[in-house]
Amino acid sequence: MLPLHELEGKIAVIIDIFRASSSICYGIHNKAKAIIPVSTIEECLSHKNEDCLLAAERDGCVVDGFDFGNSPFSYTTEKVQGKTIVLTTTNGTRSIRLSLSAKEVVVGSFLNLTALCKWLAMRRESVVLVCAGWKDNFCLEDALFAGAVVEKLQNDFEIHDDGATASLDLYQLAKNDLSGYLEKSSHRERLRKLHIEKDVDFCLQLDLIDTIPVLKDGKLIKLKEVNSSLNGSEIDLSIDLESEPG
Amino acid sequence: MLPLHELEGKIAVIIDIFRASSSICYGIHNKAKAIIPVSTIEECLSHKNEDCLLAAERDGCVVDGFDFGNSPFSYTTEKVQGKTIVLTTTNGTRSIRLSLSAKEVVVGSFLNLTALCKWLAMRRESVVLVCAGWKDNFCLEDALFAGAVVEKLQNDFEIHDDGATASLDLYQLAKNDLSGYLEKSSHRERLRKLHIEKDVDFCLQLDLIDTIPVLKDGKLIKLKEVNSSLNGSEIDLSIDLESEPG
Repeated sequence: MLPLHELEGKIAVIIDIFRASSSICYGIHNKAKAIIPVSTIEECLSHKNEDCLLAAERDGCVVDGFDFGNSPFSYTTEKVQGKTIVLTTTNGTRSIRLSLSAKEVVVGSFLNLTALCKWLAMRRESVVLVCAGWKDNFCLEDALFAGAVVEKLQNDFEIHDDGATASLDLYQLAKNDLSGYLEKSSHRERLRKLHIEKDVDFCLQLDLIDTIPVLKDGKLIKLKEVNSSLNGSEIDLSIDLESEPG
Repeated sequence: MLPLHELEGKIAVIIDIFRASSSICYGIHNKAKAIIPVSTIEECLSHKNEDCLLAAERDGCVVDGFDFGNSPFSYTTEKVQGKTIVLTTTNGTRSIRLSLSAKEVVVGSFLNLTALCKWLAMRRESVVLVCAGWKDNFCLEDALFAGAVVEKLQNDFEIHDDGATASLDLYQLAKNDLSGYLEKSSHRERLRKLHIEKDVDFCLQLDLIDTIPVLKDGKLIKLKEVNSSLNGSEIDLSIDLESEPG
């Protein structure tokens, strides 16, 4: 669905709450040197002889023979500090690769919600919220996160996209009990069957970290210059905030 | 986005509330002999020498040289009774053509909501709600209609699709004042600029008619055998209701 939105000149926020974008944010916060998103297992394997950790997830499981998948508990400081990780996931890393035409690609999750929104508000550029979904279908949890971003940015941005409007309304319905609301999500059901409910609870934590992963030369690294990135002379006041719940 | 859902063996409900699906339902109810949906203006023009009305809409306007577009007020009894109409619209007719792999293709709108849902409940087969959207983007009014269908069918169907869940929640937020809720829809804004707000009000009327258009041999005609279509021996109790708010 991604190619439907024009990304050129805009900031793309990659959203794959369960679990790729949450784990990427957590891993970069925990001082992984870089996370290299790749689309295929073959591409991931091609980095085998480099000094990298190889992470591959398909259909919610770690692919056989890989160091790990996309559980956030694999991205702790002790496991990733100073390391480069090559990662492929069912949905999230594909969205990153499909967003390369954007001016800038960053990664969002509930874990870094407020930091991300502060940075987006400072930048005051057009933003596309890229919900990875599950195998190209609409995902409730990604839409809810999009709604959380819209809620925080609605006074700074002009919103003229039905997806953003719907996401905001859904988030406002759900926000007092995200976990309860998501009981009815299809993906949660999928994760429950895989016995990784603790991952779900982890990914729904608000503002655990203030790190924003940004894509530079094909690698996700920590965005450092948050404060210096506000450049008054470049502010574009005609802003549209789009989102992709579908 | 349509190709993302498997349609084979399922009933596809085409939804393009503003205005194609509403006008098709109204026209078939008003005794149009048939409405032939075509994808392009050229295809529509190729029927010029036949005894047909030619209807073409692009970007909300009647295309120059055509009898009319997709305003429901062009589909009154006096205009369409006994006539065959060849119709192309920006979104709706394309969705119909993309749904040809479905077992059956019918057209839904608020105008025939209850009749449609009664028929779907009788059929008890898997249903895909195909929201046409606007140029492939998510549309609030189409999602709300999907939610209305889900609300009516939720006791008859098993729902395991996040799009259906989200649509239902949005509809329940909006249903007491659909028109007010849709004040914030992008498409409404588009239609307002074209001074066709009366079309919007018309399309939001609930249960004005009990006619269901069905696609037979490339033509939309009136579904007649509502009562005889319940066949107990073919009931499939494993049902999924999917929707495409994205």
